[in-house]
Amino acid sequence: MSEVRSFPIEPWHVRETEEQARDPHQLARSESVFALSNGHIGLRGNLDEGEPRGLSGTYLNAFYESFPLAYGERGFGFAEDGQSIVNVTDGKVIRLLVEDEPVDVLRGEVLDHERVLDLRAGTLQRSMHWRSASGHEIKLHTERLVSFTQRSIAAIDYRIEAVDRPVRIVLQSNLIANQPELEHTDDPRAANRLGRVLVPQLAIAHDQRVVLAHSTKASRLGAAAGMDHVVYDESGDVRRHTHVEDDLGRVTISGLLEPGRPARLVKFLAYHWSSRQTTDWLRDQVDASLEGALAEGWEGLADAQRAYLDDFWARADVELDGDPEVQQALRFALFHLLQAGARAEGRAIPAKGLTGPGYDGHAFWDTETFVLPVLTYIQPDVVRDALSWRHSTLDLACQRAGQLGMRGALLPWRTIRGEECSGYWPAGLAALHVNADVADAVRRYVRATGDEGFEAGCGGDLLVQTARLWQSVGSYDHAGRFRIDGVTGPDEYSALVDNNVYTNLMAQTNLRAAAEAVDRHAELSQRQGVDDDEPERWRAAADAMLLPYDERLGVHPQDQDFLTHAVWDFEGTPAERYPLLLHYPYFQLYRSQVVKQADLVLALHLRGDVFTDEQKRRDFEYYEGLTVRDSSLSACTQAIVAAEVGHLELAYDYLREAALVDLHDLHRNSADGLHIASLAGAVLAVTNGLGGMRDTDGGLLFRPRLPAELDRLAFGIALGASRLRVEVLPHEARYEVTEGPDLDLRHFGEDVHVRSGQAEVRPIPALHRLPRPRQPAGRAPARRPRHRRAES
Amino acid sequence: MSEVRSFPIEPWHVRETEEQARDPHQLARSESVFALSNGHIGLRGNLDEGEPRGLSGTYLNAFYESFPLAYGERGFGFAEDGQSIVNVTDGKVIRLLVEDEPVDVLRGEVLDHERVLDLRAGTLQRSMHWRSASGHEIKLHTERLVSFTQRSIAAIDYRIEAVDRPVRIVLQSNLIANQPELEHTDDPRAANRLGRVLVPQLAIAHDQRVVLAHSTKASRLGAAAGMDHVVYDESGDVRRHTHVEDDLGRVTISGLLEPGRPARLVKFLAYHWSSRQTTDWLRDQVDASLEGALAEGWEGLADAQRAYLDDFWARADVELDGDPEVQQALRFALFHLLQAGARAEGRAIPAKGLTGPGYDGHAFWDTETFVLPVLTYIQPDVVRDALSWRHSTLDLACQRAGQLGMRGALLPWRTIRGEECSGYWPAGLAALHVNADVADAVRRYVRATGDEGFEAGCGGDLLVQTARLWQSVGSYDHAGRFRIDGVTGPDEYSALVDNNVYTNLMAQTNLRAAAEAVDRHAELSQRQGVDDDEPERWRAAADAMLLPYDERLGVHPQDQDFLTHAVWDFEGTPAERYPLLLHYPYFQLYRSQVVKQADLVLALHLRGDVFTDEQKRRDFEYYEGLTVRDSSLSACTQAIVAAEVGHLELAYDYLREAALVDLHDLHRNSADGLHIASLAGAVLAVTNGLGGMRDTDGGLLFRPRLPAELDRLAFGIALGASRLRVEVLPHEARYEVTEGPDLDLRHFGEDVHVRSGQAEVRPIPALHRLPRPRQPAGRAPARRPRHRRAES
Repeated sequence: MSEVRSFPIEPWHVRETEEQARDPHQLARSESVFALSNGHIGLRGNLDEGEPRGLSGTYLNAFYESFPLAYGERGFGFAEDGQSIVNVTDGKVIRLLVEDEPVDVLRGEVLDHERVLDLRAGTLQRSMHWRSASGHEIKLHTERLVSFTQRSIAAIDYRIEAVDRPVRIVLQSNLIANQPELEHTDDPRAANRLGRVLVPQLAIAHDQRVVLAHSTKASRLGAAAGMDHVVYDESGDVRRHTHVEDDLGRVTISGLLEPGRPARLVKFLAYHWSSRQTTDWLRDQVDASLEGALAEGWEGLADAQRAYLDDFWARADVELDGDPEVQQALRFALFHLLQAGARAEGRAIPAKGLTGPGYDGHAFWDTETFVLPVLTYIQPDVVRDALSWRHSTLDLACQRAGQLGMRGALLPWRTIRGEECSGYWPAGLAALHVNADVADAVRRYVRATGDEGFEAGCGGDLLVQTARLWQSVGSYDHAGRFRIDGVTGPDEYSALVDNNVYTNLMAQTNLRAAAEAVDRHAELSQRQGVDDDEPERWRAAADAMLLPYDERLGVHPQDQDFLTHAVWDFEGTPAERYPLLLHYPYFQLYRSQVVKQADLVLALHLRGDVFTDEQKRRDFEYYEGLTVRDSSLSACTQAIVAAEVGHLELAYDYLREAALVDLHDLHRNSADGLHIASLAGAVLAVTNGLGGMRDTDGGLLFRPRLPAELDRLAFGIALGASRLRVEVLPHEARYEVTEGPDLDLRHFGEDVHVRSGQAEVRPIPALHRLPRPRQPAGRAPARRPRHRRAES
Repeated sequence: MSEVRSFPIEPWHVRETEEQARDPHQLARSESVFALSNGHIGLRGNLDEGEPRGLSGTYLNAFYESFPLAYGERGFGFAEDGQSIVNVTDGKVIRLLVEDEPVDVLRGEVLDHERVLDLRAGTLQRSMHWRSASGHEIKLHTERLVSFTQRSIAAIDYRIEAVDRPVRIVLQSNLIANQPELEHTDDPRAANRLGRVLVPQLAIAHDQRVVLAHSTKASRLGAAAGMDHVVYDESGDVRRHTHVEDDLGRVTISGLLEPGRPARLVKFLAYHWSSRQTTDWLRDQVDASLEGALAEGWEGLADAQRAYLDDFWARADVELDGDPEVQQALRFALFHLLQAGARAEGRAIPAKGLTGPGYDGHAFWDTETFVLPVLTYIQPDVVRDALSWRHSTLDLACQRAGQLGMRGALLPWRTIRGEECSGYWPAGLAALHVNADVADAVRRYVRATGDEGFEAGCGGDLLVQTARLWQSVGSYDHAGRFRIDGVTGPDEYSALVDNNVYTNLMAQTNLRAAAEAVDRHAELSQRQGVDDDEPERWRAAADAMLLPYDERLGVHPQDQDFLTHAVWDFEGTPAERYPLLLHYPYFQLYRSQVVKQADLVLALHLRGDVFTDEQKRRDFEYYEGLTVRDSSLSACTQAIVAAEVGHLELAYDYLREAALVDLHDLHRNSADGLHIASLAGAVLAVTNGLGGMRDTDGGLLFRPRLPAELDRLAFGIALGASRLRVEVLPHEARYEVTEGPDLDLRHFGEDVHVRSGQAEVRPIPALHRLPRPRQPAGRAPARRPRHRRAES
């Protein structure tokens, strides 16, 4: 694998240099980094010409194909069908011929090439200066957006000029269905490849508009894609031709380009899809959306895009002085979080957003555990939508629980539409914690927003049905302790364990939250048929929840037996055998003390209330020695708990790792899509980690502290109608309510009443320096390079 | 499913009545029960006409096709390819037309129909009196054998006569390749269906001989099948015609049949197959084998068959007075054990023998644990061959261990040729006990036969490489105990557990046996590169082996955590939801106290030396309450331990269940092939159970006792050059050395020296009656029906 080229450090842009664009290894990574999405539709950052490319990608949220899952030996209750997101009809492609030579970054001579993701404009800009083999020069400026305000619309502003002499150009603006895939991988984290899954239903062309409609074979979804164009150079020489086939729509525009008289083409794309609407209706919607976009024009769409983002950044920006690289990465993270969720509106937020086909486009528990805890405080409407999507799958989850002999709901481990899609049951059936993770997200959302109606409705339904599952799968032992056996916790290097601490503690929260919701909302109780003593049974189970502890080592075991296992031979494991899951069998991993990702440490974060400070420190340091971070869902949690227990420099290293996961392609698979949860985790590492924020039933707590590397940190959070701005300096913290009513919080245990419009400043107590804990051999997080530090 | 019709009770025959032959549900079961095999080739008991049939089956040991195993989510080290036994070219078929009407048990009128498996003749006999729709009557008498003495040969003696008037008959004697399969099932215990896997290589016909050769696509094996015929009715009217196609050879014989002048056709079949020989060579071998068979003739083959069986029964017969049904079943069991192993000669003894396609024709650990412990004392040469087959797979097993990061050998969970074929890794990779089971079989064979050369050679190699695996996967805990974590024991309703008692104790034996073998045989040590302190490390691990015990309950847990789990809701589990694995997910089974098959109780049997009598009784009674016997590998072990701890009536019930598994089709899947290990287990339930025999390092022990139902029991065993006959009566036991030198044994703890040619008689101490333990609701073994008891 080639060395990863990093992007230049700038506060509000991610810029790709010429070398990156021409390096085939970087191409697919850049396509993910430069993906544009509004949570409804997503376009990978493919070059306008369509090729060279890593993976072409145009995704519609929840537009998937299903396929039977195969098993060497099938067992009862194994998931029947997989679901895989479909690369739908591609409207990004605009091919260009200059004097009969195709413009191609790998041919001719690229005199200059740059792409810029503008985090405030919400567009991807590209400029290229290109000379053909026969010496004809052109300059190309394109800009692309996926509209946050018009959710079905994407648009491309395409400008071209001749440099020194007139050139004849031919533009082919395409809509292409069933694009072939160019490569294949065996990495289980990549996507299934299903081949040509789009069945043509309709292909219409008139003027400069083409609409293609297709349906999927097995999942029986229909999608219509349309393009229309505005051509701004109307010199008499321009020829136009519109052509359509089942899988291709093409508008061809040709003409002679004079130097100093640039031509401009604006291309509008619209997508509509459904599981029940007819092709006719979908086509009508596409035509209507295109009309709307034409009426707004490029400038209208671009202005609305910038205004939408101005509003977002005012709420969501995180400022971090002292490390411009991480500053850039955090804004990149927030931008992609917004892109993943903004207009998902009742559909899932997948692990990769709509940036690539990785994990088949599935959503996992990490949405609720990492993504929503960020969005809850900056974009709570998106959280409500995302949890409403979970609610829409609740019937399926209850059916599945029933089929498997459990009560309540068994939420899927991985899915697009709600059906369990995992082909590996120790994850797909035993990782029950997803139930509690969703419940925790409901609880957090209701606490932060005060949205009682949601708790009485969708949220309450989720709380009750997830709690019922715990009641059904747990059991009391001879000593009256409530046990949850045979489950898989967050750490995927263990499976089918008894009394996973994380699972037990999160189930405890879930049971209590359900009981409280039922107490508060009689209509919920009635709708869900909660009988009189059910909440008491939930509370009793929660109160009796078994929490194992190892007296000899003085630490909590990840699960009841974890600490009795042999420690993995880290010294004997060479660097090239990471990630371990690609080089060692589960058999060896499961039976050893080796941790893929924070699990007990995640419990320290999310259930910090049940651990003493000393326990947290001891536990954290113990698991540091075992955690290899083969998952991108680990560094952020380690950052948060490291900060809490006083390992500030380590927290900072992990914050960097979480934030740079995709810009530095740390897991070497950003090509398949971005690690949305890790990007969210980087923000959590700031707010919950260095900011020391905890939003608890007992109130809003802060214990902020800066590592020596940083000079200042600032972020805002929304709580009900109030907005709180938090600013952290080396020796003091400043809390200001910028909007809405007063807020109460605690700063290092001290009660602070923050009046609306006023700031409260409090000193930060000094920190006792601790020796840095050790990670497994070769797995310590990277430290910030010295030369970068000097720059900052 | 239809009621199972039972076979009439006779001491030396299994007889199928007319109703059974015409019941389509019984057909496939009868085909398994009436399968003939010599361990080298196997023919299912299909009707001569070929149809109606359940499953046509002609099997050649180790002739399989391989196919890629599919996974919804693949993991490192998952088995790549499956192997499935092939239904090869069928030579059993002889179709008959009478006056242009096909003889078919489902058409015309069957006036009489009977099939008899003759356990002393070693043949399957059939007689039929049939009248066509137009009133033509014939009588058919056929007899079939698969030769124990000519391992490549099967033969059919086919006689037909007209009853009251002359009839024109046409006989078509066929060889058919790539027979279509008629039905499909989702039961995971059944076979994979691969379709047409035989690729034609050669098709030759001359005179009344046809040879067809085929090869498999993926496994690249070649097989040649040949038939030749002798026609005994040479009236001038007989016409003959021989025809051949790629997948069909046919010899047609037609003529007019006069009453009182029966016609007779003898058909000889020969099979040769190889992974390396050319088609030409295989064809030559088939022709040569056919010449040999023609020279012997039917009578020669039948006489040799009977002589072979006379010799077998003299050694192997078990006599049991008081229950003729079980007497018949035990002889049926011994006959099929012989059929499964007699001429396997360096190939595996599959779980179904060569009686059907169940479990894809794979061999499992049960061969070494149930089948070989019987054969060791009656047919030790077969045991040597079977273990030599294991030895032939040792290189593959060492490669696999290395690939998975372990040392030594990882023997396959299920295989035909040696490669792991399990598509479910918690079985295929974690059920390490197969290593110890093979080692135990080696040790038993060497102890019983004194075959030191085997221990110094193949057997020693197996002991050393299996011991190395234990050393490599086990680890010492903080208290210096040797742990084996994350394994799957015999009970398939648990998986990936720590310190499975059975596994730990059998590994202990394995480690010690390896150390002793290395001590005794310097050449073994040298060949295997055993360094000076390796045996010491094996002994140290064995001595430190962790044996969990539950003080509170006063019983041994099946694995360290087993007894902390909730007990399965047996009362809430209706009868139709058994076997549980077809109605509940592994998730629910693994996390509950529910036992598919004896596991801890198997440890009580095979490692009885480490348990006190009181522990055995308490453990046995505890696990009785949890064991559902969804596996056929359970009743026999429960019988053995029930007898040992004093539950004699229960032992007898389990003995009956093990013995009648196929004759009563107790698991409703005898159609796919017989349960060879359960049949072996029935014999063990007599010798080890009621006979109380244990062959230990400390000598040969007996504690025989008869349940009230039985009057007498007798069996013989070979030990080195000696033969011991054991006879058990209600109040005394008689030990006689019928051949070879004197033997020492212990009878209820008393040392007994049995002189050659003399009998020693000892009284049997009275038994204190214990209350009968309870089984899970609805899972108690059937008691012998009263009316049957009266008959006896």
